[in-house]
Formats: sequence, C-alpha cells, structure tokens
Amino acid sequence: MLYHVRMDVRLPPDLDPAERADLITREKAYSQKLQRAGKWPQLWRIAGEYANFSILDVADHDELHTLLSGLPLFPYMDIAVTPLAAHPSKVGAGS
Amino acid sequence: MLYHVRMDVRLPPDLDPAERADLITREKAYSQKLQRAGKWPQLWRIAGEYANFSILDVADHDELHTLLSGLPLFPYMDIAVTPLAAHPSKVGAGS
Amino acid sequence: MLYHVRMDVRLPPDLDPAERADLITREKAYSQKLQRAGKWPQLWRIAGEYANFSILDVADHDELHTLLSGLPLFPYMDIAVTPLAAHPSKVGAGS
Amino acid sequence: MLYHVRMDVRLPPDLDPAERADLITREKAYSQKLQRAGKWPQLWRIAGEYANFSILDVADHDELHTLLSGLPLFPYMDIAVTPLAAHPSKVGAGS
Amino acid sequence: MLYHVRMDVRLPPDLDPAERADLITREKAYSQKLQRAGKWPQLWRIAGEYANFSILDVADHDELHTLLSGLPLFPYMDIAVTPLAAHPSKVGAGS
Amino acid sequence: MLYHVRMDVRLPPDLDPAERADLITREKAYSQKLQRAGKWPQLWRIAGEYANFSILDVADHDELHTLLSGLPLFPYMDIAVTPLAAHPSKVGAGS
Amino acid sequence: MLYHVRMDVRLPPDLDPAERADLITREKAYSQKLQRAGKWPQLWRIAGEYANFSILDVADHDELHTLLSGLPLFPYMDIAVTPLAAHPSKVGAGS
Amino acid sequence: MLYHVRMDVRLPPDLDPAERADLITREKAYSQKLQRAGKWPQLWRIAGEYANFSILDVADHDELHTLLSGLPLFPYMDIAVTPLAAHPSKVGAGS
Amino acid sequence: MLYHVRMDVRLPPDLDPAERADLITREKAYSQKLQRAGKWPQLWRIAGEYANFSILDVADHDELHTLLSGLPLFPYMDIAVTPLAAHPSKVGAGS
Amino acid sequence: MLYHVRMDVRLPPDLDPAERADLITREKAYSQKLQRAGKWPQLWRIAGEYANFSILDVADHDELHTLLSGLPLFPYMDIAVTPLAAHPSKVGAGS
Repeated sequence: MLYHVRMDVRLPPDLDPAERADLITREKAYSQKLQRAGKWPQLWRIAGEYANFSILDVADHDELHTLLSGLPLFPYMDIAVTPLAAHPSKVGAGS
Repeated sequence: MLYHVRMDVRLPPDLDPAERADLITREKAYSQKLQRAGKWPQLWRIAGEYANFSILDVADHDELHTLLSGLPLFPYMDIAVTPLAAHPSKVGAGS
Repeated sequence: MLYHVRMDVRLPPDLDPAERADLITREKAYSQKLQRAGKWPQLWRIAGEYANFSILDVADHDELHTLLSGLPLFPYMDIAVTPLAAHPSKVGAGS
Repeated sequence: MLYHVRMDVRLPPDLDPAERADLITREKAYSQKLQRAGKWPQLWRIAGEYANFSILDVADHDELHTLLSGLPLFPYMDIAVTPLAAHPSKVGAGS
Repeated sequence: MLYHVRMDVRLPPDLDPAERADLITREKAYSQKLQRAGKWPQLWRIAGEYANFSILDVADHDELHTLLSGLPLFPYMDIAVTPLAAHPSKVGAGS
Repeated sequence: MLYHVRMDVRLPPDLDPAERADLITREKAYSQKLQRAGKWPQLWRIAGEYANFSILDVADHDELHTLLSGLPLFPYMDIAVTPLAAHPSKVGAGS
Repeated sequence: MLYHVRMDVRLPPDLDPAERADLITREKAYSQKLQRAGKWPQLWRIAGEYANFSILDVADHDELHTLLSGLPLFPYMDIAVTPLAAHPSKVGAGS
Repeated sequence: MLYHVRMDVRLPPDLDPAERADLITREKAYSQKLQRAGKWPQLWRIAGEYANFSILDVADHDELHTLLSGLPLFPYMDIAVTPLAAHPSKVGAGS
Repeated sequence: MLYHVRMDVRLPPDLDPAERADLITREKAYSQKLQRAGKWPQLWRIAGEYANFSILDVADHDELHTLLSGLPLFPYMDIAVTPLAAHPSKVGAGS
Repeated sequence: MLYHVRMDVRLPPDLDPAERADLITREKAYSQKLQRAGKWPQLWRIAGEYANFSILDVADHDELHTLLSGLPLFPYMDIAVTPLAAHPSKVGAGS
C-alpha cells in the first residue's frame, strides 16, 4: 500500500559536527536499504528546504510506523503521513 | 522538471448534475491526455478527500501553469505547487 | 487495518428540509450497514459540534476511500484520515 | 464518560538516554495500569509520529485531568481533549 | 460538570428579517430557560463580536450535546467545547 | 469590568525542581490573594493541559496588565485577554 | 479606556449597488459622529485592504460593544478587539 | 517606494461569462497603464494559482491604496502588502 | 508616513538578570529618544502580554527598518509592520 | 527560470558574536557572488523583520536547491519557494 510522507528535518545548528555527519550517513544508508527493498520507491528534495516528499510502499500501517520511527533522524523530524488510494482518472486504473 | 502538486476540489453541492458530470468527464479526458504524453506521471487520490497528489513533469513554470490553469475543474480547485529537486540519498542519484 | 477519521458536516442552513431529512436518513442507513458489517467499529459525536470521530476497519486505502466517498453527506463534509498503528504500551500488544 | 485525547510527545533529542529510558518505562507502566483498570480502553499510535490517539473512560473532568497530568511524560506532551457524546447513528444507541 | 463553550454566530446578512427576528427571539427564550434551570450559569458577550463565552453545568457530555444542538441558532454557529476541571490554586478547592 | 483570560504555562521540563516548586508556591499565593480581594472571581483548569481559563474583575486595562504581568509564572506564560460585555440574553440583564 | 480594533469588511461583490452605497454612506456618518464625540480618536485604512485599524476611547466594554455592534457594516465585518494599557516606556507616562 | 504585493483572485465560478470577460479586460488595461507609467515594475503569475506577486513603486501608502483599491478585480481579491527596504547585501547598495 | 507595528518580546526566562535589566533600560531610552523626535507618536502595551502596538511616523521604509532593527530588543522580538493610508471616513480627511 | 523566495533568519540571540559576524560576512559575499552572476537579480529587506524577499533566476530546481542550501545562514533560515510564471497582463508578454 502507498503512503505519501512529508519529512521536515530540524537539526539544531549547534549539533556536534561529527554527530551530525554520523546521523546523515546512517540516514542515507537506512533510506537506501529501504529503496533497494522496494519499500521507498520515490524520494524528492523539496527545493530550498531541508525536507522531502516520499512515497512508501509497505504492507500496512504498522510496517510504515516501524520503518519511519527507525529513521536515524526521526527524533529531529516532523512527519506527516497521507494514505493514497487509486485515482479514477489514472490511466491504466480501469479507465 | 518535476513539480509536486496538491489539488483540492470544491464543487458546490448544488451544482447542476449534468454540468457536474460534464466537468468530470472533461477533467478525466484532459488528465489522461497529459498522462499519456508523459507530463503527468503520478496521480493519487488522497484517501477520504476530494483531492489528489500529483507529480507533473514539464519543461518549465510556464508550461506547468498553462497545463494547470487549463484543467476543466481549475475554477473549483485550490492548488499548491512545490518544485522538486534531486535528493542526495536517492539510489541512483550519484550515491 | 484501522483508520481514525474526523468528519465535519457543513449542511447549508437553507437546504430544503425534505432534502435534508432524506440525506440524514440515508446517511444513517449507510453508516449502520457498515457498522453491522464490522467496517465502522467506533462512532462518536464530538460534543457541541455537527461532527464525529470514527474508527474504520477496512482492507486498505482503496476500500476506505470507496466507503467514505460513498457517504450520502460526503459532498457536505470535511474529512481527515489518520492511519493507526499498534501502540507499544497497549496491553496485549506484546507487552 | 468518554474523552478523545490526542497526545504529542516532544522529547528533546539530547535528553540523557538513561532518563529517557526511565521515563518511557514509567509511562508504559502507568498507562497499562490504567488500561487494566478499564480507564484507558483505546490506545493507538499515529502512524509516523511520536503521538497517540486515546479514548479515556473516567468519572468526570477532574479524574481525567488527574490521570493525564500524572503521566510521566506529561511535561513533554501537547495534549488535546475532546468530550465524546453518543452518536445518533450508532448501532445499538436507540436506533 | 462544567464546560467552557465559545459560540460564534454566522447569520447570513441577507437572511429574511422576520426569520432572523424569530430565530433570535427563540434563541433568547431557549437560553433563559436553561439559565433559570441552573444549566447555563455564565453567559458573556465577547466585546465587538457576534459571539459569546458560556459556562454550562450539566450531567454529562450527552446532556451537553443535546442542549447545544437544540439551540435555535445551532445551524448558524461554530461551537468549541472545553471541559473544565478544578484548579489547585482556587480558593476553597482544598487549598 | 470583566476580562476573560486564557493562560498557558510553558515551564521548561529541565527547570531546577526547587525553583519550580518555589514558582508554583508563589503563583498560588499571588492568585489566592487576588481571589480573596474579589479581583479573580473564576479560575478553572483546562482538562488535560497546563492551562487555565480565568475571569478577572478589575477597574480597567491598566490594573489588568499590572496584575497579570506580576504573576510569578508570567515569564513562562502565553496569555490571551478578551474583554467581556453584558449579553442581551442573560437573565437579569434587563431582559 | 482605549481599545485597539481591527475591522475587516466582507461586502459580497454582488450586493445591490444602491444598498451598498447606502450602507457606506450610513457607515461614514455613524463613524464621524463618534469621531466628533471623541470616542473614535484614530482611524486608519490598512493599505491595500478593505479594512481599518481604529482606536476607540469609551467608558467600558459594554459601551464598546454597543458602538461596534451598531455599525451599519457590522453584519459584514470581522472585528478583533484588543484592550490597551499604558506602556512603561511612553514619554509622559511617569517615566 | 517599493511595496511587495500578493493578490489572490476569487472569482465565483458561476459569474456571468460576459461580466467575467469584461472584468478581466478592464483589469489588464488598468494594470498595463500602471506598468507603462512605471508604477508597477514587476508582475508574476504564481504557478498553478489564480494569483500574482507584484512590485509596486509609488510615492506613498496613500497612492498605493488608491491604485490597489481601484483595480477592477479588487472586490474579488485578497491582497497582502509588504513594505520593502534596501537590503545591506544588495550589490550596489553601498556595499 | 505612518506605519502600524506590533512587537512581541520573547525574552528567555533564564536570561541573566543584569543583562535583562540593561536591555530594558537601553530599550526605553532608545524608544523615548524616538518619541521625543516625533518618530514614534503612539505606543501602547497590549494588556496581559509582553507586546505593544505602535505607530511610527518616518520618511520611508528604509528609515523604518533602520529604526526597528536598531532596537536593543530587536533580536528578541517578532515584529509585524502594516502601512497605513488615510481613511475616507476620517473627520478632517476631506470629508 | 524565476523563483520567488522568502527567507526568514532565526539567529539565536546568544550566538557567539564572532561566529555571528563571520556568518553574516560570508552570507554577504555568497549572495553578492550570485548577484554578480545574474542568478539573484532581486533582493529586498522585509521592513521591520530579519527576512528578505528574493527573486532567483537559475536553470532548474536542482540549481535552485544547490544555491539555497549552500547559504552560510541556511541552517538558521526558514525558506519558502514559489515558482513564477509569465503573467498574461505583463506589458511585453505578448499583450
């Protein structure tokens, strides 16, 4: 099932640079593992902001929450989840 | 270039049913023509709302505005556009 | 899967009384059919408002959207959907 | 009487890990004691957020406030309370 | 039990004057009956607005909703309810 | 003259416990002195929140500001003031 | 006593032009009568908006509400009132 | 002096098409006359919305208000004005 | 030219008391110098808040920004500026 | 392509003065380099706020994000981007 997710990162400017670099490295590895597993099929940077729009494709709400709350940056993020349904005007969706 | 677009439709409940049906038929045809042309690659219904999240892939801001303002439902919509950049954690984006 | 739904009804005060009564009768029948089918296990009135909090239990986002957009009052409602996951402190949830 | 409660937890990311673990352990025990006493019949995680929707079933507003303000995480929470009334379309509610 | 209620009235300016006068007369009678019954102990006009702050004193959420949804102006109002608990600094509250 | 006041307290969770206890003790004494003087006739806890609704009865805006800005917790509060007028439906208000 | 008032006028664009002109003429006369009486000492247009900031100088909240609710445009206005106190840095205010 | 202005147009979808066309024709002529006079040096469409960002260059607040309130579409617009000052990092601004 | 300004002061409660006192002393002197020069003709405390409404009378936007950004409390303030035009109903404004 | 950008700077008041001065010096140099390259054609201070409105002229969303996220003050900014299209009433835009 598809979920639209917006993530806004609020890293404190005075975070220790080594800790910051480590967080970002782990976040990238975590994200890419999920992308390669097909669970995070879309990921875009919102231009001008430390934020992204993502599409996650997981079995259910519990898997979604497990994946999102496991993000290394989760304690520094505001996250908004929107469940996505099929659109009747979508080409190929029975039209 | 990619744009994230949220469209919220506000059709008045007392709209003439024939006019309503005509609007929706034309909206679907308009959308599907753009989908087939590769300019509207993603289209999802926001579950529970008369609204959608879309990804549009067009040459520039002017083409985007021309396409959106030409939607048959445009006079009845609230639209929010967000330009999308490449995300540094995206698999295949130079990572 | 469980979804938390808030529905706010905005019926125009000058709606024809017969139409209004018909809408509400059909809404009630529609809701009770889903309740009896186990798909709408919780339904509460928000005290003082023409609004409700509901829990829906359906197979996926598409079924959720089909059920909600089929509500007789749907054209008069603002609806907000929140997907619900298991809470780690819930008694009986592996605690 | 039933109350709908939304709780958003704002733990500072730099909280001492031992203090954090202790807080969460005590929160869970506190919550489960109330669940077992029948005062906290519903508890769901909001998918993707460090937040929950809860239903509390207590004698009155004073008991509600006593229970909520006693939460170990109370100083770190934003809480919104909504009183719930019977819904006229609820199956079994005199319909 | 005490509830704090804010009511904002949105009467359409083009409402038929006779209907308007009738609504307001019935609203006043309805309110005063509840005041005399001790269920609406406080009622203030918010200076400069067609709105009020009220304190209602009723048995439970259901009675509150019944009283509020029975207001002649209910279809024209936005209403916000807040349950009130005893304050620990209140003189006479066990201090 | 009557003023409706909402006070939201934002005490930092890491405030020194002795300082916190001292602040709250002084706040209570300050409030009760004003209550006994008839200047703070109503005080309710907003259920579930570290906040209150109050009615203050003072001579004018200047006295109101002097009293509120003298609260020991004033530096930690968000305060919203609403002037209250007589309501034409109030029993006893010339109706 | 001084009150800061913001008034936003929402006249429907399809209002009958004669009724509109009459409303505005009466509003101006009403306002100027209060200005001449010293009760409305300041009145500014908010540049670019059909709105104003005003200072009213009246005896109390009741007089304020009576004056504002008597405005010919009152049914078409959103009004926000803020009570003003003396500022300790004001020259001549005991500094 | 420079003012940043955002204008959002809210034309009712059921406006008479001839009236609509006439309004838009007059709006364009009005705008272009001001552009040619150097008083409206910048005008951009906000992509996807019936709205614009503009820069106006006029003598003072009164001239600004006169020009904006004279727009044929003024009764259908929400307008937000922001005064612009010189930026210390602007090349050529004494840097 | 006249500008309406709202200033909200957010001084951290744990600010060093000497630094706090120094800031406030310097703020008062700065403000009174401008008042005496006729550039800050109105200054009111918003009752119950650490905030003010002010009217500034300066030559242009640049002078306004220079004066406001030079306030000793500027780093601790949220400031909102509104340009004021003549109101057509103002007595003495050509009425 | 043109982008409208609003930047709000939130520098902590207790930032080390040397670090603050260094940040601002580097920000100015960074900005002026882009201005001289023609990529940042407009830059205005929002009067009374530590904020600016800017117009950026870059090849695409990716270049925009690269330039903005490279700002020395980026970790301290809230940024909002709006893509700008040609306006049909613009003189010279085919009118």
